[in-house]
Amino acid sequence: MSIRIGIFGYGNLAKGVELAIRKCPDMELAAVFTRRDPAGVTIKTPGVPVYHADDAVKYKDDIDVMVLCGGSATDLPVQTPEMAKYFNVIDSFDTHAKIPQHFENVDKVATESGKVGIISVGWDPGMFSLNRMYAGAVLPDGEDYTFWGKGVSQGHSDAIRRIEGVIDARQYTIPKEEALEAVRSGKNPALSTRDKHLRECFVVAEEGADLERIKNEIVTMPNYFADYDTIVNFISMDELKKNHSGIAHGGFVIRSGKTGENGENKHIIEYSLKLDSNPEFTASVLTAYARAAYRLNKEGAKGCKTVFDIAPAYLSDKSGEELRAHLL
Amino acid sequence: MSIRIGIFGYGNLAKGVELAIRKCPDMELAAVFTRRDPAGVTIKTPGVPVYHADDAVKYKDDIDVMVLCGGSATDLPVQTPEMAKYFNVIDSFDTHAKIPQHFENVDKVATESGKVGIISVGWDPGMFSLNRMYAGAVLPDGEDYTFWGKGVSQGHSDAIRRIEGVIDARQYTIPKEEALEAVRSGKNPALSTRDKHLRECFVVAEEGADLERIKNEIVTMPNYFADYDTIVNFISMDELKKNHSGIAHGGFVIRSGKTGENGENKHIIEYSLKLDSNPEFTASVLTAYARAAYRLNKEGAKGCKTVFDIAPAYLSDKSGEELRAHLL
Repeated sequence: MSIRIGIFGYGNLAKGVELAIRKCPDMELAAVFTRRDPAGVTIKTPGVPVYHADDAVKYKDDIDVMVLCGGSATDLPVQTPEMAKYFNVIDSFDTHAKIPQHFENVDKVATESGKVGIISVGWDPGMFSLNRMYAGAVLPDGEDYTFWGKGVSQGHSDAIRRIEGVIDARQYTIPKEEALEAVRSGKNPALSTRDKHLRECFVVAEEGADLERIKNEIVTMPNYFADYDTIVNFISMDELKKNHSGIAHGGFVIRSGKTGENGENKHIIEYSLKLDSNPEFTASVLTAYARAAYRLNKEGAKGCKTVFDIAPAYLSDKSGEELRAHLL
Repeated sequence: MSIRIGIFGYGNLAKGVELAIRKCPDMELAAVFTRRDPAGVTIKTPGVPVYHADDAVKYKDDIDVMVLCGGSATDLPVQTPEMAKYFNVIDSFDTHAKIPQHFENVDKVATESGKVGIISVGWDPGMFSLNRMYAGAVLPDGEDYTFWGKGVSQGHSDAIRRIEGVIDARQYTIPKEEALEAVRSGKNPALSTRDKHLRECFVVAEEGADLERIKNEIVTMPNYFADYDTIVNFISMDELKKNHSGIAHGGFVIRSGKTGENGENKHIIEYSLKLDSNPEFTASVLTAYARAAYRLNKEGAKGCKTVFDIAPAYLSDKSGEELRAHLL
């Protein structure tokens, strides 16, 4: 029997999950839940029902894992614990500072309901976290470096859009090549925020707006830009749409460690992602962990878990024998 | 209380484990076991006893995890199941084709004794296997590529030494840069054995030996060299000792996959290692998994496991709270 997946919310991430399920012969999309009028939502999968989010609980016996595809700011902190009352759930909650609180909230509900909730799944948090953890456990004497990009940062783009006179904007986070090379060389450099990443902005301004003021407001914006080298380009709306609507992203996790009697042997562990579609890759990770949520719950597990708590084999549709014979 | 580690065998890998334990505040080296005369074995850690391998069972209550540091050809197939009768065990068994049989042997014994046995831990098998598995689960529509090197292959060096007229030899496995670049580009190239790696040999021949014959025997040797481009260099013993006694190694695991309605979005996941010391890095991985063996057994787990079966958090000396707050 297939693992019956529900998708909660129907934006880009959800569409990625819908497509990822097609690549998993052991899974099927059972239903999509939306806060919009279901009659107005057309999905990519023929024959699969779209229901209103408020009715989700009615389908608690028809869904094995509910994949929550809302945003981290306001949706997931409410939706994940709420849905964990009735379903095994999985989300991509990515507000790093608030993960401990979110974990507690989901853990409390899921432990009571006997369901499994897996939070903060994706690539960062997610695959990058795993790589930081494995590399740190293997090389305790060392330093971690995480670089993001090149890719669009939604939060930074939004921050620019809030400036008076700005119509639209895209902000690229770009890792600095010289910093990457210094880390890869094993020098364990102390890198400031400015040393690691460059921020490049493409801004569409209102006609007649004071471009110098806008530029100045961007580059001096605390938390977002003040600590970085920031390049500001003003472009037309046509250009923005044509050249800057990409959803590519990626990054690097590097551990530089040493072993030996006197730390004489250096080791570099590097994990990198080059992603054409940030939401589709995140969705693919979510889908693999949805399989894990289902299996863990079948075995009697309950409560909140993260990628750290789940043995890798749970993610694969292959048996232990197959994995040992072909991938070990 | 510290995790009490026993080391079985005392070669380069064992010395690496001994040093790795020093970096783990939750572990201590309890004893070293050797098949040589213990009186003749001096270890790096003052105050730690060296016992004869035959006496190991006497210390079954003093060792939490026995790390087996013998070779895969003849030592581990016998020693790991034998020691699993009395101890939680961990080994670096790396004969890929024989892993299923070794798993069964260890599983049978460890299940009966109530101990945990973790086999095939290191970087390949080990960290590379993990990365093949995670990446394949996340991007089911894709191809795996594993490249090794640049580093010395012990098996290939040994094969050259068996040729008449050869005194000593080192063989480097070298990944071909153009193959790596083709894979990274997302082209999913079909790569032959010859396309992926180059083999470079440094050979010390007997005086007056027929160098052309030796060279020919190397490059035409089935399984080892015949399917590769092989470079043979004849050098002096002094040169071999001076320039080719390194123990550096490394490699790359790359998954090239696609998502989207028609596979229109490409994704590249790359994991790479650059290791100054192959045995010390392998030892560091073994040591982290020794922690996992101890904890799993404490929780009541028994039987044989591989890296696929173990949740990442078991490898770390940090608590779940710490991991979530700082690494997720």
